[in-house]
Amino acid sequence: MAIPWTRRLSIIHNTPLPRAQIARRFSSTSSQYQKLRVNPARLLSDLHHTCQWGTGARWGTAPTETGMSRLALSDADRKARDWFVETTKSLGCTITIDEMGSIFAVRPGRKTGAATFAGSHLDTQPSGGRYDGILGVLAGVEMLKVLNENKVETEYPVGVINWTNEEGARFPISMVASGVWADKTPLQTAHNLMEIGGKATQKSELQRIGYLGSTPASHKSMPIAAHFELHIEQGPILEQERRKIGVVLGAQSYRWYTVEVTGRDCHTGTTPLAARADAMLAASKMIVESNRIASSLSGLASTGVLTLTPGSVNTVPGTVRFSLDIRARQDDIVDAIEAEVKASFVQLAQPCSVEIQRDFTSPAIEFDKNCISCIHEAAQSLFTTRTEELTKEMVSGAGHDSVNTNYICPTAMIFIPCKEGVSHNPREYSEPEDCAIGADVLLNSILNYDKLRASKASS
Amino acid sequence: MAIPWTRRLSIIHNTPLPRAQIARRFSSTSSQYQKLRVNPARLLSDLHHTCQWGTGARWGTAPTETGMSRLALSDADRKARDWFVETTKSLGCTITIDEMGSIFAVRPGRKTGAATFAGSHLDTQPSGGRYDGILGVLAGVEMLKVLNENKVETEYPVGVINWTNEEGARFPISMVASGVWADKTPLQTAHNLMEIGGKATQKSELQRIGYLGSTPASHKSMPIAAHFELHIEQGPILEQERRKIGVVLGAQSYRWYTVEVTGRDCHTGTTPLAARADAMLAASKMIVESNRIASSLSGLASTGVLTLTPGSVNTVPGTVRFSLDIRARQDDIVDAIEAEVKASFVQLAQPCSVEIQRDFTSPAIEFDKNCISCIHEAAQSLFTTRTEELTKEMVSGAGHDSVNTNYICPTAMIFIPCKEGVSHNPREYSEPEDCAIGADVLLNSILNYDKLRASKASS
Repeated sequence: MAIPWTRRLSIIHNTPLPRAQIARRFSSTSSQYQKLRVNPARLLSDLHHTCQWGTGARWGTAPTETGMSRLALSDADRKARDWFVETTKSLGCTITIDEMGSIFAVRPGRKTGAATFAGSHLDTQPSGGRYDGILGVLAGVEMLKVLNENKVETEYPVGVINWTNEEGARFPISMVASGVWADKTPLQTAHNLMEIGGKATQKSELQRIGYLGSTPASHKSMPIAAHFELHIEQGPILEQERRKIGVVLGAQSYRWYTVEVTGRDCHTGTTPLAARADAMLAASKMIVESNRIASSLSGLASTGVLTLTPGSVNTVPGTVRFSLDIRARQDDIVDAIEAEVKASFVQLAQPCSVEIQRDFTSPAIEFDKNCISCIHEAAQSLFTTRTEELTKEMVSGAGHDSVNTNYICPTAMIFIPCKEGVSHNPREYSEPEDCAIGADVLLNSILNYDKLRASKASS
Repeated sequence: MAIPWTRRLSIIHNTPLPRAQIARRFSSTSSQYQKLRVNPARLLSDLHHTCQWGTGARWGTAPTETGMSRLALSDADRKARDWFVETTKSLGCTITIDEMGSIFAVRPGRKTGAATFAGSHLDTQPSGGRYDGILGVLAGVEMLKVLNENKVETEYPVGVINWTNEEGARFPISMVASGVWADKTPLQTAHNLMEIGGKATQKSELQRIGYLGSTPASHKSMPIAAHFELHIEQGPILEQERRKIGVVLGAQSYRWYTVEVTGRDCHTGTTPLAARADAMLAASKMIVESNRIASSLSGLASTGVLTLTPGSVNTVPGTVRFSLDIRARQDDIVDAIEAEVKASFVQLAQPCSVEIQRDFTSPAIEFDKNCISCIHEAAQSLFTTRTEELTKEMVSGAGHDSVNTNYICPTAMIFIPCKEGVSHNPREYSEPEDCAIGADVLLNSILNYDKLRASKASS
């Protein structure tokens, strides 16, 4: 299935920056390398500038103390995309837009070839924040600015990707554009996705806002040498442990289930407890037990959706359906939790009955060892001291576009702390300093990877 | 507040049956008394005849194997009312319709005075059965037929009541007409009740179907000497213990609460269990514990309604609200359960918080000792042997119009078994034999009470 490397190069790269613009101030052995840093004020200023499009609920008094509501392919998303295209073009990039509207901005290197990318997404949850996705793209833009102002010429092209509709909030498949790119989701399925509560499709909205590109949405047409993604942790671990950088080794294994407990509707006043088949009582026992089992096996179990019928104060519910989300670092741990949960639920259901259906499976993902090493090295060069205290190897609990790119190309992620682990919420917040540290690590990881590619090519 | 007895009599009774129609074949010492029985075939035939109006979901192949859907003051309810009025008139009754549309059919006795009534309701749940309420009214009609064909002249008038909207399913106050009659609910409140999901009021629908009577809906205008109600148990106890008659001593104490658990929304994949404030997990523990506490104190605890937000498979819910229905035979037991529940919920909530609001209180009700004795005597005379095995003193778990009449006049209830305790369901079912036994006990309880009134008046 792989396209020959030479052919990939010709697809990718046909508008090099004028050589004159790029002085060769960067080499793999230069001591200057370790000193490349982003401009924190500019990074944050750009980030908040783009948050004028799709500003969400206010939570504080400062101008930037609002959330975001920038649904994929909305007018606000179009404006943020326009800014991204104009800005990266002005920084000397070639722009490619694929059939899913994903935008690839490529800055030429000394050699041609697929770019090493910083990728993430500009769309948000309807009640989201200013950092989830946005930070990853803006740190990529900041990388371009730092490279330009330092007149760095990389060995190979580097670039920034804005993946379309990572959130799946408006068109309900998450990470859908990277999924199409990675052959995980058929293009037709993605194009035909209907807007929740509306009549538009993902394709009609791509057309409407002018982002239905002509390049096939595929790794075959738009190869990526390596994909690095800076993201907020969306969990509390880094903050609680006072660490600055999460080196993400992969994504945990997870499965979603629907559990249906069937008892018997009866009157709350006239039915002795011993004569009941109380589906809500049985479901409650199951939720408590699933939590205990997951905890004992270092996994996670959560129930986020629960419905019952008939739903009357004085009727014991005869039917309860609830979701169960089980996660762990490894597939075999999820296997073990699932087996214990199933056995215990059958016991706890009595005298009700229970059916457990698995709806979705996402196996554990392991990121690329070389990419991970590049991140470790970047962190080490930045912190110089206390690197071990300040970084943590961790596993992503959430899905990201990087999970999809990892099926096709070397990939790894960088996490930074976010306040109280809050995300998908207007109050989502990361300290400016932490955003800058994350962007520094992203920049230097990509430079490290570029160096690695060059050393491999020459060896 | 009480109206003088002589005045009550003059209000009630002004159209006696022609004396010639009533031979005096009944006296308080007659052995014939013990032999008065309903006609089971006629009782069931009449009951199913009236179920042609508002027939509900089918559950079997026989013509009568359907549920009922006869909402209060619907066209189907009007037709059942019309039948009730025509039938009781043809049996020699005087009809009074009050401002709540309740229908009082009175058969004259030898003396004037308030009638001893068999009362219940012809309206049903939207997905109800053929016995809840309907049996009580139809057994009253059958009583009139038995008295007439045996040419029985009672000492005082006896009658049958169809109370309006007992179910509260269409206009959402249960037992509303008996509540107005007993000064528990203001007439205006009852008249202004809006139809659920519609624009009609209870008063406009009373007008529309021609049942807005002119008699004030009050015990002062329409006194009741005593109120007997035959009803299906709506619970499984009689069936499980193979008993035929429940002698209902009163209604249990109950309270309704809304419990709100507040935690913190977080991502199911990125938040370690120890860092969560999982409102659904806390609520599940509370539901399990409330059941344990109630069980240990011989009470009941039930959760029939539960909602959570935000309601997404991969978000740990930050808020869960659920209903709690606590019941026990005595108020002090409900007090004790409430106290234990509150203390335990605060503990179990951690690290969430919990608020518990009491929405509704219905104290324990004790029915009239004389009425209860009349039921016991009737059962004894009917069963002749094994009376103790076949009857059971019990407490009503559900609300009934008798709970309201009990505030004003001597009241008691008779229960018969229903299949698996199922009620408010199309499959609600009582054996024809059990319906007939219940109607026999109702008939003879009312005759016993009539005898008792006469003996008190003469002593």
